[in-house]
Amino acid sequence: MTLKIGVIGTGAIGREHIKRITNNLSGGKIVAVTDVNQESAKSAVEQFSLDAAIYPDDKALVADANVDAVLVTSWGPAHEQSVLAAIEAGKYVFCEKPLATTAEGCMRIVEAEMKHGKRLVQVGFMRRYDSGYVQLKEAIDSNYIGEPLMIRCVHRNPEVGDNYTTDMEINDTLVHEIDVLHWLINDDYKFVQVAFPKKTKRAAAHLQDPQLITLETNSGIIITAEVFVNCKYGYDIQCEVIGEEGVAYLPEFSGIATRKEAKFGTSILMDWKQRFIAAYDKELQDFMDSIKNTGEPNGPTSWDGYIAAVTADACVKSQQTGEKELVVLADKPDFYKN
Amino acid sequence: MTLKIGVIGTGAIGREHIKRITNNLSGGKIVAVTDVNQESAKSAVEQFSLDAAIYPDDKALVADANVDAVLVTSWGPAHEQSVLAAIEAGKYVFCEKPLATTAEGCMRIVEAEMKHGKRLVQVGFMRRYDSGYVQLKEAIDSNYIGEPLMIRCVHRNPEVGDNYTTDMEINDTLVHEIDVLHWLINDDYKFVQVAFPKKTKRAAAHLQDPQLITLETNSGIIITAEVFVNCKYGYDIQCEVIGEEGVAYLPEFSGIATRKEAKFGTSILMDWKQRFIAAYDKELQDFMDSIKNTGEPNGPTSWDGYIAAVTADACVKSQQTGEKELVVLADKPDFYKN
Amino acid sequence: MTLKIGVIGTGAIGREHIKRITNNLSGGKIVAVTDVNQESAKSAVEQFSLDAAIYPDDKALVADANVDAVLVTSWGPAHEQSVLAAIEAGKYVFCEKPLATTAEGCMRIVEAEMKHGKRLVQVGFMRRYDSGYVQLKEAIDSNYIGEPLMIRCVHRNPEVGDNYTTDMEINDTLVHEIDVLHWLINDDYKFVQVAFPKKTKRAAAHLQDPQLITLETNSGIIITAEVFVNCKYGYDIQCEVIGEEGVAYLPEFSGIATRKEAKFGTSILMDWKQRFIAAYDKELQDFMDSIKNTGEPNGPTSWDGYIAAVTADACVKSQQTGEKELVVLADKPDFYKN
Amino acid sequence: MTLKIGVIGTGAIGREHIKRITNNLSGGKIVAVTDVNQESAKSAVEQFSLDAAIYPDDKALVADANVDAVLVTSWGPAHEQSVLAAIEAGKYVFCEKPLATTAEGCMRIVEAEMKHGKRLVQVGFMRRYDSGYVQLKEAIDSNYIGEPLMIRCVHRNPEVGDNYTTDMEINDTLVHEIDVLHWLINDDYKFVQVAFPKKTKRAAAHLQDPQLITLETNSGIIITAEVFVNCKYGYDIQCEVIGEEGVAYLPEFSGIATRKEAKFGTSILMDWKQRFIAAYDKELQDFMDSIKNTGEPNGPTSWDGYIAAVTADACVKSQQTGEKELVVLADKPDFYKN
Repeated sequence: MTLKIGVIGTGAIGREHIKRITNNLSGGKIVAVTDVNQESAKSAVEQFSLDAAIYPDDKALVADANVDAVLVTSWGPAHEQSVLAAIEAGKYVFCEKPLATTAEGCMRIVEAEMKHGKRLVQVGFMRRYDSGYVQLKEAIDSNYIGEPLMIRCVHRNPEVGDNYTTDMEINDTLVHEIDVLHWLINDDYKFVQVAFPKKTKRAAAHLQDPQLITLETNSGIIITAEVFVNCKYGYDIQCEVIGEEGVAYLPEFSGIATRKEAKFGTSILMDWKQRFIAAYDKELQDFMDSIKNTGEPNGPTSWDGYIAAVTADACVKSQQTGEKELVVLADKPDFYKN
Repeated sequence: MTLKIGVIGTGAIGREHIKRITNNLSGGKIVAVTDVNQESAKSAVEQFSLDAAIYPDDKALVADANVDAVLVTSWGPAHEQSVLAAIEAGKYVFCEKPLATTAEGCMRIVEAEMKHGKRLVQVGFMRRYDSGYVQLKEAIDSNYIGEPLMIRCVHRNPEVGDNYTTDMEINDTLVHEIDVLHWLINDDYKFVQVAFPKKTKRAAAHLQDPQLITLETNSGIIITAEVFVNCKYGYDIQCEVIGEEGVAYLPEFSGIATRKEAKFGTSILMDWKQRFIAAYDKELQDFMDSIKNTGEPNGPTSWDGYIAAVTADACVKSQQTGEKELVVLADKPDFYKN
Repeated sequence: MTLKIGVIGTGAIGREHIKRITNNLSGGKIVAVTDVNQESAKSAVEQFSLDAAIYPDDKALVADANVDAVLVTSWGPAHEQSVLAAIEAGKYVFCEKPLATTAEGCMRIVEAEMKHGKRLVQVGFMRRYDSGYVQLKEAIDSNYIGEPLMIRCVHRNPEVGDNYTTDMEINDTLVHEIDVLHWLINDDYKFVQVAFPKKTKRAAAHLQDPQLITLETNSGIIITAEVFVNCKYGYDIQCEVIGEEGVAYLPEFSGIATRKEAKFGTSILMDWKQRFIAAYDKELQDFMDSIKNTGEPNGPTSWDGYIAAVTADACVKSQQTGEKELVVLADKPDFYKN
Repeated sequence: MTLKIGVIGTGAIGREHIKRITNNLSGGKIVAVTDVNQESAKSAVEQFSLDAAIYPDDKALVADANVDAVLVTSWGPAHEQSVLAAIEAGKYVFCEKPLATTAEGCMRIVEAEMKHGKRLVQVGFMRRYDSGYVQLKEAIDSNYIGEPLMIRCVHRNPEVGDNYTTDMEINDTLVHEIDVLHWLINDDYKFVQVAFPKKTKRAAAHLQDPQLITLETNSGIIITAEVFVNCKYGYDIQCEVIGEEGVAYLPEFSGIATRKEAKFGTSILMDWKQRFIAAYDKELQDFMDSIKNTGEPNGPTSWDGYIAAVTADACVKSQQTGEKELVVLADKPDFYKN
């Protein structure tokens, strides 16, 4: 019953997933790896003492009859080709975000998957597996706070490198909110608008930081999202849903509280990797379990990857125009309705 | 050294202030009252056993040589005339908001006061006296969180009566944020924009509720203010200032915490009157103390009343146009600098 | 209707109260002062521009027919004599703690007051006027948390001077808990026991710090009180009442919260004077109001002062014996039952 | 490299562990089961589709050469015999608490293990694997709060069944604190004392509830532990360590916060199983990983099981005598020092 997995891309995130599957999770086994840098592929096999074939490229890897599923953890621009190859070979795919770097690319994957006839692809939007978001969704779905009317969320990082650019506040950072929020409220985006508040002196000259993004849904819910990647004080993810009967908040990270030096405080993480560490485990375990139990992955779909791409594109356009921009989505195929 | 005070308007808020000055505060005495309803004026004198003259109108009251200062606590449209009469008579004025119902009316008061040659007027924006806002301002002024870049604030009431209209979300509710925020960050508003999120089913048919107001300052700080007057769960005032080095929050109301029925929680007030009760005391005590110690009141000025009126007008215009609207303020006279 | 007040003892606390009554509160006036140091008495009159007679001693002051009430703010050992003199003269008394330095002294005051025939004395246990304790008592009295079973409280100071001794952890520090807790739960103490945990290296050689005091009431409620006067991090008063249906907590001091340097925190006071500043105002205003409205003060009575003295004595005895000690109270006279 | 595991006792907790090892964790496989109720053993094999031998008793199971390690999840009185049998067979043992029901029994296991010559046994005190306790220990070990002086902890359950008896507040409930606290502060207990506060009306007639236990360590740290198993409002584990420089708190369970019905609150668990669910996973994963990586388990040892037994015995004795009781531990063998 073990799911035999091939890994396309053995960089940092690829190795994190190899480690998880090999040492922490149940039901999966790495049987094949590839990387554009073949030395990296070899060293990954050694590092984790894998009993795995090393392939020259993604096409060769997906062709291995021993491979049931692939993890696509290469760099973003290569994702589309690998995912399409895997679908063509009828293999399951766990693809890190982005599914593809363009909306058109995502749509090609959607179409290939529909042509194949059953869902094969899960996109690595791990927040849906975070126990905080899960609790928040339960509160909303159970109508505990009534109909949602507004959402306020915050995505702050202490700092970013110099190669981080203004559009990455959308494509790399906000994209997690873009995915998790429409899932949270079962709604789709209609308009987006980006505003640039006073810039922090800690941002590089070329970087507009912070940014305030407004997303409006079909039903009229207005989401105000702050992205601030040089906030200095910590990695901080907040989400507050304001409903007709009350307000619900994503939990803070659960750190010890202290009283010291005239402050009663709790720790804020500086390192984003700690924040969703349990969610990374859960998304992969669920990917493997769902395939075993139902024959399909259960997480964010290709369609969700497409929504993220279209919405992010509209945000980037608004960064340039300063105007409210339409989010033009194709009609959702029945294939992706559950 | 007792400040002899005449009260113009003996309704609910007028009597609250009479009670404060008579029973809780030091240094003031009610010596005259008037009200368009003379019976109300008489009953206020009886209720508090005042040794006070009852006048037929505001002009007669301000003419009483025994009156040092007047409290204007009549209904809004009558404020301008009473304040102008008091200034003309050279009397100090504590005027409940609004200073006048139009920007032009506020400007007439500004001009009359400047002509008189010293500050006589304090507007009843009590939040500047709230210990939470005072601490927040200290944190900002001491640069504890670095340069402010964004503010997020919330003004929620459990419910409103049927006569509460869409523009009142600005003129009666947001107006407190309009005053306190520009004071907090020592900046002026440049643009405002109002958006209407999905409407709560608890609002009257004619009322747009909640509303999201964006205010942009001269230096580029963006303020996102939520007004939600049928939020049902409580009276809730929040303010969060996001700076270059950190974030500071207005304290929550200080209620007991409890663990009960699977919840660890603190009380939220249902009644707005409790929230700033200490601030009402402090603003009036400060009005009386400043006059005694410096010959001028020390609180929000006529100019602050003018700023509030101009900014609120721009917000109401944006409610109608849906567009970003300019806040066009006259140049600040030296008379009103610090 | 102004209450004419004589002040016995014009040191720091005396002047604080003079300032309050003169500048912040309503209905009282300082008309007489005395101090063992006559220069101090004179300088207090000058400092606050009082229109007040200066007397050579407490007896002369209480004899002044113009004096309605006295504030006893001299040093502790002098309290009993001044309170007795005032009672004999039929004057109201607001006496800072301790009412007397011995249980016998307190009992002499109780007897003098009963002989006089109506309540004249209020002891300066200000915590009963703190809005947090008031809310906590309301939660208990309304049965919100069911029958109280245990209390846990904490009294921490950042540091103390070298002249602060082991018994002062009881007589100067715990004494506030001793008073406020029996009022909170409408019960009396039966046993007390003091334990000495590991000593902090920050305490002076002669000082046992921290201390853990257990108080058991007649109904079996067990109170665990920590006194820790060199805790370094702040002035911190906590109280948690564990009942049959839930738990209620005294609110923390209401300071701004911040996110900065990897901490989400709220300020803790370093200076005890800020913690109960509003309660000091309220206790004196209530003293004056109650006398005006009912002819008797309404706050902590001589009997409460006696309870505090007897309980503190038992705690000090337990510091020496290490054993559980009985709290032997006389039967409560009807005079003090309300 | 898979650790082949036999399970002794296929009741609720046994099946939880079988499920974990089979479906969630990495590196272990259930190869044998036994239960005094053979039907239960069979049904467990079926429930999880195990490829496992079913044995008539613990002796037969440990004798299976295919078994590397055993889980002892039978009822408490049977633990000692199974653990001794496993040690004799040189098998690793993960034993749920208690290690044995008497201190003597624990000592027999200690001696058998020392005779065997390397550590084989891990006791199922899962709290040491809880991320909150781990953070708390890091704060202490890094001297962040200075030398610990006092601890206050709370162990509350909403309710217990009628068969829960007064001594179980120690043996079943407090025992988790007994283990985790001496680990937290690297110290051993010297004295214990149990006090009975006013009893809740919700406890069965035969049950003394709540209880307050005081534990004093060799270095003089005083721990105050409340056990309250009919607290009604939730399952609540608290731990606060008071040090020379500050105070550190075990985090609360991380639930969503809400504002609703005049309360700002976070959820408290009602079900204890949720509280340490991640810790159960981690303790078993660590048991398997340590054996693989170092040849010995890394968690709580037989000696820790012995300490728990001796300390719990002293507490139960104090329940009966009401006196402070000595905790008489044998000298710690070098074998258990790391």
